[in-house]
Amino acid sequence: MCGVVGIAGKSPVNQMLFDALTMLQHRGQDAAGIVTCDQGRLFLRKDNGMVRDVFHTRHMRALLGNYGIGHVRYPTAGSSSSAEAQPFYVNSPYGITLAHNGNLTNAAEIHDDLFKTDLRHMNTDSDSEVLLNVFAHELQKCGTLNPTPEDMFHTVSRVHERCKGAYGVVAMVTGHGLVGFRDPNGIRPLIYGSRETAQGTEYIIASESVAITALGFKIERDIEPGEAIFINSEGELFTKQCAVNPEYRPCIFEYVYFARPDAIIDGISVYKARLKMGEKLAYKILKEWSEEHDIDVVIPIPDTSRTSALELANILGVKFREGFMKNRYIGRTFIMPGQQQRKKSVRQKLNPVELEFKDKNVLLVDDSIVRGTTCNEIIQMARDSGAKKVFFASAAPMVKYPNVYGIDMPAKSELIASERTVEEIREIIGADRLVFQDLEDLKDAVRTSKVPDLTEFDCSVFDGVYVAGGIDKAYLADLEQKRNDTAKKQADGYIDVNIDAASVDLTGIKEE
Amino acid sequence: MCGVVGIAGKSPVNQMLFDALTMLQHRGQDAAGIVTCDQGRLFLRKDNGMVRDVFHTRHMRALLGNYGIGHVRYPTAGSSSSAEAQPFYVNSPYGITLAHNGNLTNAAEIHDDLFKTDLRHMNTDSDSEVLLNVFAHELQKCGTLNPTPEDMFHTVSRVHERCKGAYGVVAMVTGHGLVGFRDPNGIRPLIYGSRETAQGTEYIIASESVAITALGFKIERDIEPGEAIFINSEGELFTKQCAVNPEYRPCIFEYVYFARPDAIIDGISVYKARLKMGEKLAYKILKEWSEEHDIDVVIPIPDTSRTSALELANILGVKFREGFMKNRYIGRTFIMPGQQQRKKSVRQKLNPVELEFKDKNVLLVDDSIVRGTTCNEIIQMARDSGAKKVFFASAAPMVKYPNVYGIDMPAKSELIASERTVEEIREIIGADRLVFQDLEDLKDAVRTSKVPDLTEFDCSVFDGVYVAGGIDKAYLADLEQKRNDTAKKQADGYIDVNIDAASVDLTGIKEE
Amino acid sequence: MCGVVGIAGKSPVNQMLFDALTMLQHRGQDAAGIVTCDQGRLFLRKDNGMVRDVFHTRHMRALLGNYGIGHVRYPTAGSSSSAEAQPFYVNSPYGITLAHNGNLTNAAEIHDDLFKTDLRHMNTDSDSEVLLNVFAHELQKCGTLNPTPEDMFHTVSRVHERCKGAYGVVAMVTGHGLVGFRDPNGIRPLIYGSRETAQGTEYIIASESVAITALGFKIERDIEPGEAIFINSEGELFTKQCAVNPEYRPCIFEYVYFARPDAIIDGISVYKARLKMGEKLAYKILKEWSEEHDIDVVIPIPDTSRTSALELANILGVKFREGFMKNRYIGRTFIMPGQQQRKKSVRQKLNPVELEFKDKNVLLVDDSIVRGTTCNEIIQMARDSGAKKVFFASAAPMVKYPNVYGIDMPAKSELIASERTVEEIREIIGADRLVFQDLEDLKDAVRTSKVPDLTEFDCSVFDGVYVAGGIDKAYLADLEQKRNDTAKKQADGYIDVNIDAASVDLTGIKEE
Amino acid sequence: MCGVVGIAGKSPVNQMLFDALTMLQHRGQDAAGIVTCDQGRLFLRKDNGMVRDVFHTRHMRALLGNYGIGHVRYPTAGSSSSAEAQPFYVNSPYGITLAHNGNLTNAAEIHDDLFKTDLRHMNTDSDSEVLLNVFAHELQKCGTLNPTPEDMFHTVSRVHERCKGAYGVVAMVTGHGLVGFRDPNGIRPLIYGSRETAQGTEYIIASESVAITALGFKIERDIEPGEAIFINSEGELFTKQCAVNPEYRPCIFEYVYFARPDAIIDGISVYKARLKMGEKLAYKILKEWSEEHDIDVVIPIPDTSRTSALELANILGVKFREGFMKNRYIGRTFIMPGQQQRKKSVRQKLNPVELEFKDKNVLLVDDSIVRGTTCNEIIQMARDSGAKKVFFASAAPMVKYPNVYGIDMPAKSELIASERTVEEIREIIGADRLVFQDLEDLKDAVRTSKVPDLTEFDCSVFDGVYVAGGIDKAYLADLEQKRNDTAKKQADGYIDVNIDAASVDLTGIKEE
Repeated sequence: MCGVVGIAGKSPVNQMLFDALTMLQHRGQDAAGIVTCDQGRLFLRKDNGMVRDVFHTRHMRALLGNYGIGHVRYPTAGSSSSAEAQPFYVNSPYGITLAHNGNLTNAAEIHDDLFKTDLRHMNTDSDSEVLLNVFAHELQKCGTLNPTPEDMFHTVSRVHERCKGAYGVVAMVTGHGLVGFRDPNGIRPLIYGSRETAQGTEYIIASESVAITALGFKIERDIEPGEAIFINSEGELFTKQCAVNPEYRPCIFEYVYFARPDAIIDGISVYKARLKMGEKLAYKILKEWSEEHDIDVVIPIPDTSRTSALELANILGVKFREGFMKNRYIGRTFIMPGQQQRKKSVRQKLNPVELEFKDKNVLLVDDSIVRGTTCNEIIQMARDSGAKKVFFASAAPMVKYPNVYGIDMPAKSELIASERTVEEIREIIGADRLVFQDLEDLKDAVRTSKVPDLTEFDCSVFDGVYVAGGIDKAYLADLEQKRNDTAKKQADGYIDVNIDAASVDLTGIKEE
Repeated sequence: MCGVVGIAGKSPVNQMLFDALTMLQHRGQDAAGIVTCDQGRLFLRKDNGMVRDVFHTRHMRALLGNYGIGHVRYPTAGSSSSAEAQPFYVNSPYGITLAHNGNLTNAAEIHDDLFKTDLRHMNTDSDSEVLLNVFAHELQKCGTLNPTPEDMFHTVSRVHERCKGAYGVVAMVTGHGLVGFRDPNGIRPLIYGSRETAQGTEYIIASESVAITALGFKIERDIEPGEAIFINSEGELFTKQCAVNPEYRPCIFEYVYFARPDAIIDGISVYKARLKMGEKLAYKILKEWSEEHDIDVVIPIPDTSRTSALELANILGVKFREGFMKNRYIGRTFIMPGQQQRKKSVRQKLNPVELEFKDKNVLLVDDSIVRGTTCNEIIQMARDSGAKKVFFASAAPMVKYPNVYGIDMPAKSELIASERTVEEIREIIGADRLVFQDLEDLKDAVRTSKVPDLTEFDCSVFDGVYVAGGIDKAYLADLEQKRNDTAKKQADGYIDVNIDAASVDLTGIKEE
Repeated sequence: MCGVVGIAGKSPVNQMLFDALTMLQHRGQDAAGIVTCDQGRLFLRKDNGMVRDVFHTRHMRALLGNYGIGHVRYPTAGSSSSAEAQPFYVNSPYGITLAHNGNLTNAAEIHDDLFKTDLRHMNTDSDSEVLLNVFAHELQKCGTLNPTPEDMFHTVSRVHERCKGAYGVVAMVTGHGLVGFRDPNGIRPLIYGSRETAQGTEYIIASESVAITALGFKIERDIEPGEAIFINSEGELFTKQCAVNPEYRPCIFEYVYFARPDAIIDGISVYKARLKMGEKLAYKILKEWSEEHDIDVVIPIPDTSRTSALELANILGVKFREGFMKNRYIGRTFIMPGQQQRKKSVRQKLNPVELEFKDKNVLLVDDSIVRGTTCNEIIQMARDSGAKKVFFASAAPMVKYPNVYGIDMPAKSELIASERTVEEIREIIGADRLVFQDLEDLKDAVRTSKVPDLTEFDCSVFDGVYVAGGIDKAYLADLEQKRNDTAKKQADGYIDVNIDAASVDLTGIKEE
Repeated sequence: MCGVVGIAGKSPVNQMLFDALTMLQHRGQDAAGIVTCDQGRLFLRKDNGMVRDVFHTRHMRALLGNYGIGHVRYPTAGSSSSAEAQPFYVNSPYGITLAHNGNLTNAAEIHDDLFKTDLRHMNTDSDSEVLLNVFAHELQKCGTLNPTPEDMFHTVSRVHERCKGAYGVVAMVTGHGLVGFRDPNGIRPLIYGSRETAQGTEYIIASESVAITALGFKIERDIEPGEAIFINSEGELFTKQCAVNPEYRPCIFEYVYFARPDAIIDGISVYKARLKMGEKLAYKILKEWSEEHDIDVVIPIPDTSRTSALELANILGVKFREGFMKNRYIGRTFIMPGQQQRKKSVRQKLNPVELEFKDKNVLLVDDSIVRGTTCNEIIQMARDSGAKKVFFASAAPMVKYPNVYGIDMPAKSELIASERTVEEIREIIGADRLVFQDLEDLKDAVRTSKVPDLTEFDCSVFDGVYVAGGIDKAYLADLEQKRNDTAKKQADGYIDVNIDAASVDLTGIKEE
């Protein structure tokens, strides 16, 4: 998962882009980048690291201009694309820079096509570089010195035709303006806002609403699936639906886990959706465990599940308690020659408040269960702290399938729920009882009467239905293989990703 | 406020010290340092910055040895000591390194004495450097090649006699062992633990219990006011009360705000104390506002007040909601030549979930009110989000006096409550109603039957009684002056503290 | 002036490129860069600074592959191109990287053409980026997946047709090989060599022969004016004359000052040429000052003039002495707030050995006189050291015109000889006598019977004849303006070039 | 060998110290440091690296004050002291900083004494830290708040009594002034100068005269063996002979090789001494090889031997030629995983001009022959370049004994001349003839009628007589052992000196 932002301003945008990326930092903490444009010249800074570490004063001062885009990266496992920071750049045509959230599922084929038809060299394995080159190639085919909004929209249409998968994109065409577009299923979010200034209207495009409101912009609306938005160099805004059969299928995992709770995505409050997940789950527990359940206290695994756990406790009529304190500052383990390496356990991240466990039946609530490895440790911590019984609830259904749309999830074989029953999982994680949300309940929790048209979602990790199509067994097998390879290499300490990253990327060199 | 740790181990302690400092990071994020000792040689790394930024692999590899101490620093306003990272070092006698949490209130006089009697040069304004030199001078006077535990305890006694104020200290005497001691009022916390290994027993001394338990050590007990603890080079532990009239007066602000909620200080659970602060406050509200209060929802200002707010809501019988989302990633504002600087408001730190405010009477709960400036903004945010009425509750009493024991608080003139009534404050911050905890209630909330002897605290910021004595009007006036000067200089951008820090400190040079 | 190198090897070339750049360091100390290619992927490292400072172990480890090119940059005054490090990169077609020594004199027009016909964005003012894009555009027009040697040579022919000026170029076409070519007048040098290895023949192309021999390669021959050389991905070498009317006119200043004395350029030993410059100058002195000159000792201004001064002394029958010691380590002057800045004089660079001046008539010999400002100081130093008379000899003729082919020289108005007589110059610099080499003597000194065809040179700084044509008054006036602007800005401290450089360049970000 | 400087100024000294260290850079390129004093506070910057790399603008800005000292370090092989940068600091008494050029031969004994009598911890193996602590201990024993010049001189007397070996020292006593002193044999040079300013007289103390004159100071005179100089905080200068039996025995190797040619040491011009070395050697050749020698040309091995080679050629009546070009920019060899490391040969440092060797009998002149390994390669290069015969001359006698006074020389067993005849050496290095200077001729070359009292020198590397005494077989055996160990460890890549250095030194932490 990643976060993107683009601003077409009337005054310097460097600080605004920095602030927006800071608000999107939860979407990716692996790398950050900003490119701005001033008088036809581009200024770029990107590097591995968090926003606060990547941009120093000297970089900010060099990021001149009133237009720019930015990116925070969360590596997509299973590909070596973890090596590259965005935005990416090609110089032809016009000089185009692009930032991408999501994942193309047919990047390999397009890569070959692009080289054969247009001799375009791509220097990374990143599907985002492929996406940029498709965009560039199609825009170049328009063959005009001064691309019109129609040229931009035609180009996006061609991107939709050629690219399969999920993408929320902002791109800057040097000297011509800012483009934003979203895949025809709207799997990844993209929203825009505006602000009136003395010099005219400024526009912002971003992955989440919080980046817009925190900067003092007004939210206009979500960009629709398949739609494109273009702000030209004069600051005029144009929009157009560029997909043939767009269908609203946003990724439901954004609501479950990924987005900030205060975000509003496609008209739906993430916070409210999570409250309702807690409510739905409470009723399922009441139904299945009977109203005479023996739960003494509901304890969330911080931070994501706090909202749903609170409402769950309310409905159950049980106390809600912060039984686990999250360590905000997590240290790394250094490899010392000749010293034995100690394993960092979940205890480095969570600390129990024994008082809340002692002699109680506790219901622990997490947003979801993916590998299941930490559940085990957490449940053991609860028991060590004196809990009589430990129950466990997942606000999401069983995660059974890999994600191909840009969320960094393990290979299918590592998903604890991929081939197991609830009872089998319960036994593995060592809970006294275990409950998962039902998928229909989850959808109901997210759906809202305010957005009646939005009834279906990409729920592929739960139901294996990949809404953008084109995912066959060969693709998934290949993915499994890559993810296993990556995991293996990482376990072997085989790849020093950072050093590698230093030079693979021709448009930005990492320094310590 | 700062955090200190010392470990007398049986195997390399670099990673353990790093982990402990990470657990203490909340006590100071301004600078960090570790010194270790191996075969009579010291290895030091310290710098401005957070723990994760100060220690790289190359530093860790150079921190050899089984004994060591560490420090995280929170600058004490009003002195230029913000320029120095700890531990400090003197080479005579033995080579002594020291890390200090707290503040001496007679450092200036001692500084002069030390120079005159012992020609000791101190290169900073830090009271910790003074404390180290007192310790060194007194230990040198013992005049022995092989200091015994009695020599160490005699030295600490002399420190108690000469130094006024608050101090939790760990010091390492090269080749002879680790010393920990606490001021005769126990204002600053200090606790120790142990761990059995195949090579023998290891000991740890730290500011908070969480640093001990997270490393897998067992808590032994708090070090008593005035007591000293010494682990010699063979790993044998000795303790002794070194003060003449020790009195237990721990700083109550540790429980209110400073310590981690999962810490246990002087036998008292911080978490439980906060629950009881919420309970006490609830009863005061019920009494003062009547049981027919019109509060619809209780909303904490995250993170500290969450625990007390939750219990407050329980007692009031009102919904508890996370109406404010805290931004975990806070960006800085860069100064751009020729660009107008925008003010970072509290909105960069908190984001309201409008749903929870819309048409409701909300009670906002914070741990305390110091300057009051952010209250104003937060209350306005609540109103902007649709709240009908906005009530405000402080889990601590009115902060009326400056802190002289190591907590970074503004000058008295900047404290909103220093010369005002509750009603005046309410008007300034714009709340519909405002309530402060009563001091007696606060004390009651912290007191516990498990620790019957601990009945009084340093509550100086609330009642102006400085338990260690020696604070007269001249001292406070001087403090006021210094803090105002510092504030003024900072406002003027006058001091580039970091650059200054680069070279004032002779025992560690900061690099960018 | 710059230095370029390219290697088509049979084993990793990173260390070889590094060594070659070190040998070429005298041609440019402003920036350095290397790009290598491994399995179709490019790896780049470039930054401002000297070779030893730009490449650390982590960079070298990332520069994988058996093919690569490198560059050291000497900024060309009068253009802001001082901001960019090379090699440059475009991704289309094939991915091409290029390093350039020289200067295009019609870059501005081509820049516009390129954008209009091919929509190619150039993000800098560098003529090298223009050159790369011309090359890329023309190669793309060949329209083939697998470019043949003929396609490469056709492309170079087109470059010759479109680009005016001086250029020694190495370029790497990803996956297809290494190209080297030289402008139709051979103004800038380019030479290649080979080495037999167990894996086959390796080739190297470089600006100077010393980079070839120092690496243990055998010199094959100079690349001819207008000629191109291509080593394909199998390591096969092809050469072809690609210019219509090539004419040998190498820059004579390479022999006078720029190249290493041990270099052999276009078959001519730089060392021998300098010896002969001394000889010619000696005979002129004997003729003009009579054989009864009163010169007691000949003293070179180190380092360049040492060779000619020694032979000059031999012919005159006068002692040769090292009267000036050159400081190898030159410090910078820091700007301290509130402190008065002291001017760094030539005394920071040279120190006189008084013994050799005391009561003597000394003849100081320099390679050339450009601005004349340091002559003044040096002559004064000689007098301060006790010299009776101070004579001055320039091994080169009067520098009267600006250089447009890549040598960083001041604007015409700053050239001391541009509008003055020898006598006027003598008076300004304060010498007792002054002599310049005659241009015909200089040419004779460089010419050698071993290379009978090479009889003419670019002597434009001496005679104002720009051999590549296309230089009119408007061009020179514009150049004068730009150089004055740059000088003025630098004097004003207006541009912080390094910070600017950080982000103008999209293919390599400078870090401090 | 190292270089030291101290300035007692009337305005900020940071830039002056920086410039002086730059002029002394040839005396040590391994590390550099400056400490300044302003209003009783010290400011320090030191690190491994060259002067230009160690001091950035931010460091210079922090080096406040009108008094300060500086140091450049050349590691003394055979001890691990290569790990520490100077100046060193102790805080008691007064705060003393010290920079030292030379080597103590009884550091180990003093180290133990110091600890036992004064409990002083030394954290390195550096003899300079020992020297500082002796100075500090003796000054403390004066027991006064305001040390007089007599106290300072008494302290230096005590240092002379306790310390054996070579030392040129500058020390700063915080708040009290600057001290310079030289060992009783004057083995290491130390000289001082002055400058009149509007604010009063400024004084400078430095290792070489060039650092004084380049800063615009006037040379006063050399500090005599055993003498001390003190400039108090008011800027008043005091001097006193502090040794009981001082004897002038400066290190003759300073004249042969180490000092800058333009330096004047103890009244003797290094340049003139080298001319006379050439003259003496010429007469020896004429005598031994007969006047009908068949030498065609004299070629120096640059840079040091140039002066003596030129005069040698003059006397022989043979051409002097620069047949070897020195590469000013030397690259390092990176260790690449999986790649075979290539040996850097002398060819990386020197390049022959074939013209000057072709068919000639050449006499190569070097300043001295130590290991002899490079001679071999150089002679082979001469032959490869076409020389008929290759003769070799050393301007210094045979180096037969190790240096114990601060020059980094190999162990005795590695000295080619330690146990061999001239003929044996000639055969090993492959010369056709070989000649060494006679020791008496060397002394005669250095002696001058201007300094009639200076007739003897420390010539220990040539004659094995260690003028400061106390060097017995056990000492030399121990030294041999240490140097072999170090060499072995380095060959094994055992010590990563830089990383180790990072933390051993408590008063300055190296950052990459």
